[in-house]
Amino acid sequence: MPGVYTQLDLSPNAFEQARQQRIATGDLLDLTSSNPTAQGLFFPPELLQQASEAFWATRRYQPDPHGNPAARTAICRYYAERTPGLELDVDDIFLTASTSEAYALLFALLADPGDNLLAPNVTYPLFEYLAELRQLELRPYPLNEAEGWRIDEAGLLAAANRRTRAVLIVSPHNPTGAVVSQPVAALAQLGLPVICDEVFAPFSYGVAHVPPLAALHPDLPVLTLNGISKLFALPDLKLGWIALNQAARSLAPRLELLNDTFLSANSLSQQLLPQLFSSGMPFVQGMVERVRHNLTLALTQLHNHPHIHARPPDGGYYLFPAIRGWEDEDALVHFLMQRGLLVHPGYFYGEVPGTHLMLSALTTPNVFAAGIERLRDCLKNP
Amino acid sequence: MPGVYTQLDLSPNAFEQARQQRIATGDLLDLTSSNPTAQGLFFPPELLQQASEAFWATRRYQPDPHGNPAARTAICRYYAERTPGLELDVDDIFLTASTSEAYALLFALLADPGDNLLAPNVTYPLFEYLAELRQLELRPYPLNEAEGWRIDEAGLLAAANRRTRAVLIVSPHNPTGAVVSQPVAALAQLGLPVICDEVFAPFSYGVAHVPPLAALHPDLPVLTLNGISKLFALPDLKLGWIALNQAARSLAPRLELLNDTFLSANSLSQQLLPQLFSSGMPFVQGMVERVRHNLTLALTQLHNHPHIHARPPDGGYYLFPAIRGWEDEDALVHFLMQRGLLVHPGYFYGEVPGTHLMLSALTTPNVFAAGIERLRDCLKNP
Repeated sequence: MPGVYTQLDLSPNAFEQARQQRIATGDLLDLTSSNPTAQGLFFPPELLQQASEAFWATRRYQPDPHGNPAARTAICRYYAERTPGLELDVDDIFLTASTSEAYALLFALLADPGDNLLAPNVTYPLFEYLAELRQLELRPYPLNEAEGWRIDEAGLLAAANRRTRAVLIVSPHNPTGAVVSQPVAALAQLGLPVICDEVFAPFSYGVAHVPPLAALHPDLPVLTLNGISKLFALPDLKLGWIALNQAARSLAPRLELLNDTFLSANSLSQQLLPQLFSSGMPFVQGMVERVRHNLTLALTQLHNHPHIHARPPDGGYYLFPAIRGWEDEDALVHFLMQRGLLVHPGYFYGEVPGTHLMLSALTTPNVFAAGIERLRDCLKNP
Repeated sequence: MPGVYTQLDLSPNAFEQARQQRIATGDLLDLTSSNPTAQGLFFPPELLQQASEAFWATRRYQPDPHGNPAARTAICRYYAERTPGLELDVDDIFLTASTSEAYALLFALLADPGDNLLAPNVTYPLFEYLAELRQLELRPYPLNEAEGWRIDEAGLLAAANRRTRAVLIVSPHNPTGAVVSQPVAALAQLGLPVICDEVFAPFSYGVAHVPPLAALHPDLPVLTLNGISKLFALPDLKLGWIALNQAARSLAPRLELLNDTFLSANSLSQQLLPQLFSSGMPFVQGMVERVRHNLTLALTQLHNHPHIHARPPDGGYYLFPAIRGWEDEDALVHFLMQRGLLVHPGYFYGEVPGTHLMLSALTTPNVFAAGIERLRDCLKNP
């Protein structure tokens, strides 16, 4: 097989080797984690334990190409409460094992080998692998850093051609934190289906609320992705979903066949979902507050720093500051690692002009605070 | 998207409509079920409950592109105990959400769009959907009914061409029950990778033991599929695996990347797996005995029947008898449904000469016995 799966160097890269050496010395402030369970964030185990007891006592496998009806009802209620006017029916929802699987199903639903998808430049690297599996081209569209990483609409229009089948949007965006808060004229002009990843939606920061893209663009087919990994800090329980808006409903029968081919979502997580929504929100609020606390601390500490320019993200749980005085991101990241600070270089997320670092505000607060202080001090002098 | 996903008639077909009408009348002996939880077969819930308590108390997400190491160790031990001489290392195992997902990963690993795979004619219809997703051609190879549905080796060789990338084998075969018990000369001659689905391996009947194909063909790359759905009657917990033999080890690094793209297997099921192997075998033995009891009863009841020719399967939990005096399988199945008996027509499983029915010996014994009696009596006269 060609492409990313074969071109990749499979030996541990220099970054990973240096990281492992540093971990061995025991002095490393890791600001890269997206794993809540590695940062002390655990959905209340007694709620999970209790809800699972009922599952074991009454389990009966009832495969459904849409997924468990009660889970889908809970998802519809969640959207209805967050966004009055966004009408979702239980048959608009498809449960999957993850958003990764959801992407793969939608790529197969919307595009054939040789077609292309528009994807933000600066983004989560997984897209490249998922597109390769379907032999799709990913055509990057630019984000405008000076305008808070807003979608560059002229660039988006220019990226499309006659084999473009969908636009990928991540809102809040990973790792820039940009939220699409207003309708995007260029999206309406293209008229293509939009796949919108909203897994970071609970984590608002610069905006009061992350509006579902489906509510901003009711006339476009919008296929929204979400799941319990980020929302409830349960990446290990493997449950994601796809929500179709009314304009996308004609796609439902084919998506049903695709999801029926795999039926990958486990029944326990599906059955737990209503309980997660009904009892889990205080825990979610606690996570959101941790992230806000960390982001505010970082922005305060780094304010007016001579070499670090961090803008407040609209949402999500990452900071993606620009660093002045360094041209080589690898050299910068190694310099910081030698001083006991682990961050990701910007190029992990695409080809963006300038020098950037990725910092995760999901990190345990005392580690995060110490890390930000170290970053500030290490880069004080050029 | 072209192919099976678009050509399919999405309205409930005549068979399904008649079935639903009959269910409404309350008199239907259903001999088609492959769902153990619908047939009163439940892995001991107290064992699942107990093992899951430890999971909730200590959960920490540790993504691994191979899957949980303890689970993989338990799988290796299972194979070592069943087949001395079959040496598997923990790094030869890849955990997936299901065998369906495992097939999709292996199809992507081994073949590019436009390539083809050899698949048995008479088989599980899922293959067609999985191949379509990768835009692969499935080239059927014949099974020889007169020789107990053995692989027709000349037909297998004739089906291959220069774009053939792998051979699919199901042993015990679904639904014919044939087991590959001896090396297959044609497989050795082709020298292609073999994907061998052994999910029915615990259910031996006509043979004492189902040998892993990897042990019969140590010189070929053999990629064995299995999972907890059939083995432990846990289709809802979504855990399958791929085991590479030594000759397939060079494929491991790419498969690692592919599995890492999805990481679909949930952590709870992975963590439960060692406990399933260590405590679940008496339950598995009970299932195997139910299936054997049902098969023996059916073979005895149908022995010397003027119109039904049922041969003892080597393994698996289906009977696939040939029916004489009926040319139209649909008419036959409707005739039986009108008399309160639900079976599957042979054409659900491919294009095989003659008239066949599929009967599941996983069925609750009193329902199965009543169903076989009804089948026998309904077909007594032509």
